[in-house]
Amino acid sequence: MSDNILSINLATTRQQWGFAEAVDGCLARGITAISPWRDQVAAIGLAEASRIVRANGLRLTGLCRGGMFPAADAEGRQAALDDNRRAVDEAAELGADCLVLVVGGLPEGSRDITDARAQVAEGIAALLPHARASGVPLAIEPLHPMYAADRACVNTLDQALDLCEALGPGVGVAIDVYHVWWDPGLAQAIARAGRMGAIMAHHICDWRVPTRDLLLDRGMMGDGVIDLPGIRAMIEAAGWNGPQEVEIFSAQDWWQRPGDEVLAVCQERFESACQAR
Amino acid sequence: MSDNILSINLATTRQQWGFAEAVDGCLARGITAISPWRDQVAAIGLAEASRIVRANGLRLTGLCRGGMFPAADAEGRQAALDDNRRAVDEAAELGADCLVLVVGGLPEGSRDITDARAQVAEGIAALLPHARASGVPLAIEPLHPMYAADRACVNTLDQALDLCEALGPGVGVAIDVYHVWWDPGLAQAIARAGRMGAIMAHHICDWRVPTRDLLLDRGMMGDGVIDLPGIRAMIEAAGWNGPQEVEIFSAQDWWQRPGDEVLAVCQERFESACQAR
Repeated sequence: MSDNILSINLATTRQQWGFAEAVDGCLARGITAISPWRDQVAAIGLAEASRIVRANGLRLTGLCRGGMFPAADAEGRQAALDDNRRAVDEAAELGADCLVLVVGGLPEGSRDITDARAQVAEGIAALLPHARASGVPLAIEPLHPMYAADRACVNTLDQALDLCEALGPGVGVAIDVYHVWWDPGLAQAIARAGRMGAIMAHHICDWRVPTRDLLLDRGMMGDGVIDLPGIRAMIEAAGWNGPQEVEIFSAQDWWQRPGDEVLAVCQERFESACQAR
Repeated sequence: MSDNILSINLATTRQQWGFAEAVDGCLARGITAISPWRDQVAAIGLAEASRIVRANGLRLTGLCRGGMFPAADAEGRQAALDDNRRAVDEAAELGADCLVLVVGGLPEGSRDITDARAQVAEGIAALLPHARASGVPLAIEPLHPMYAADRACVNTLDQALDLCEALGPGVGVAIDVYHVWWDPGLAQAIARAGRMGAIMAHHICDWRVPTRDLLLDRGMMGDGVIDLPGIRAMIEAAGWNGPQEVEIFSAQDWWQRPGDEVLAVCQERFESACQAR
C-alpha cells in the first residue's frame, strides 16, 4: 500500500483555522495527515492537541518547527537549545514523524555566514542526544537562498546532507520543493539523500511568476513553474514514497479563502499536479 | 598599479540620470569607470555614447546586458540570438570589457528548467563565434536562485563555470555579490574561476535585512549582511584585481536621492566597506 498520501501543513490555513478547526476541516474531507506549528499546538495546549491527534488516529508528518540555532552570544545559543529540547518533547508527545528544523540565519549584527553555519552544526549536535533518546527524528529543511540572512543559512539539499553525514543517525532532511526546485544539482542530491536514507518529509506548493513577496506568496500546486511530478519522481526513485505535505503561506490569496475551499483545491491538485510521471 | 578601482553601473542612478548626465556626474567626482545598460545607450544613440566614452577616456567595465536566450519556439530563440549579436556589436563599439549575460529563465508556459538551461548553453554557443570575432568577452552572470524562473536559470557560480568549461575561450563570469553571497561553495567556486582565468567582472551592493522587494531593494555596500571584504579577498586571492562595479536597484531608497549624493556614498563605502581584509 502506498504511503503517498496528502498531508496538510496547518500553516496553509493559518489565518482561517486554529488547530482543532483545522483538524475538523481535514477530517471532514477525509484528510488524516497533518503537520501543525508549535504556536498552533500551544494555543490549544499540548495535552489537548495530543488527545485530538490520538482520538482521531491522525498522522503527523512533522512538527514545525525547531531550529534558529545561531545567536550573538552563549546565552542566546543556550536559550535556543533549551527551546529546541522543548520542541523535541512536543514532537514526541504528538507522535510526529519528525521535528522540522529551520536552522536560523545570521545573528544580529553578523556578516559571518560561515560562523552561523558552524553554530548550526554545533546546535544540532547538542540537540541530537535528546532527540535520539526521545525517538524524534530531526529533519533539516534547507531553505531557499533568499532566506539565508534571516531564516536559514542551510540553503541547498547537498549542504543539509553534508550536515547529516557529519552528525550521524537521527538527522535527515525535509525536502520542500519551494526551496530547492531551482538547484541545478537537485536530481543528484535527491538520489544521494535516498542512498543515505535521509528523506524524512516532502513539502509541496508552487513558485508563482511573478512572486510578489519573499515570504508570503507561495502558490498552489499547479499555479506556478515547479515541475512537481518530476521532483516527486526523483524522490520516489530515491526510494521514498511518503506523504506529500502541502505548505502554503499566501497572504494575498489562499489565506483569504475559506479553509474548506483551500483543502478542496489541495486535494484536487494533489491528484492532478503532484503525482510522479 | 592596482586595477581595483570603483566603477558605477548606471542602473544605480537610472531614475536620476540618462547616459550623458551620469557620465558628467561620475567625472565630476573623479570616477572614470562605468557600466551602462543598452537602453541608456540607445536613448542617446550608440555613436554619441561611444564618442563620449572615447572623448573622456572612460573605461567600460561591462555592457548590460545580453542573454535571455530561452524561448518557447525557434523564432523566439532566433530573435534572441539576433538581439544578442547586436549587443555584441554595441559592446565592441563602446570598447566594453565584456558583455554581461543575464541568461534568461523559463519560457512562457514552461516548467522545464533543465530544458531552459540547455537552451542557454545552445544560445551562448551560437553567439560565441561572433563575440570572438568581435573581440567581446561574454560574462555569464549567475543570478540569485529567486530569479531562476523569470530572469536567469544559471544560479550558482559553479554552474556558470561548468558552462564556461563546456564553451571554451571567450566566455567567463561576472561575480555579483548579491547573487552569490549565500553559496556554501562560494570560496571554492571563486578559486576555481581564478584558476580558469574566467573572472571578468565583480559587482557589488548589499543584501538588506529585511529585503522588501525581490528585484528593487538592493542595499548600499555596508548597509546589509554581505561580507564584502571577505568576498573581495577571495577574488583577489584567485588572481583578479579588477574594478568593483556598484550595481544598486533601489526603488524606495537610492533611486529617490540626488545622483551626486548616491555617487558620494558609493565612493565613501568603496573605501570603508569593500576592500579586501
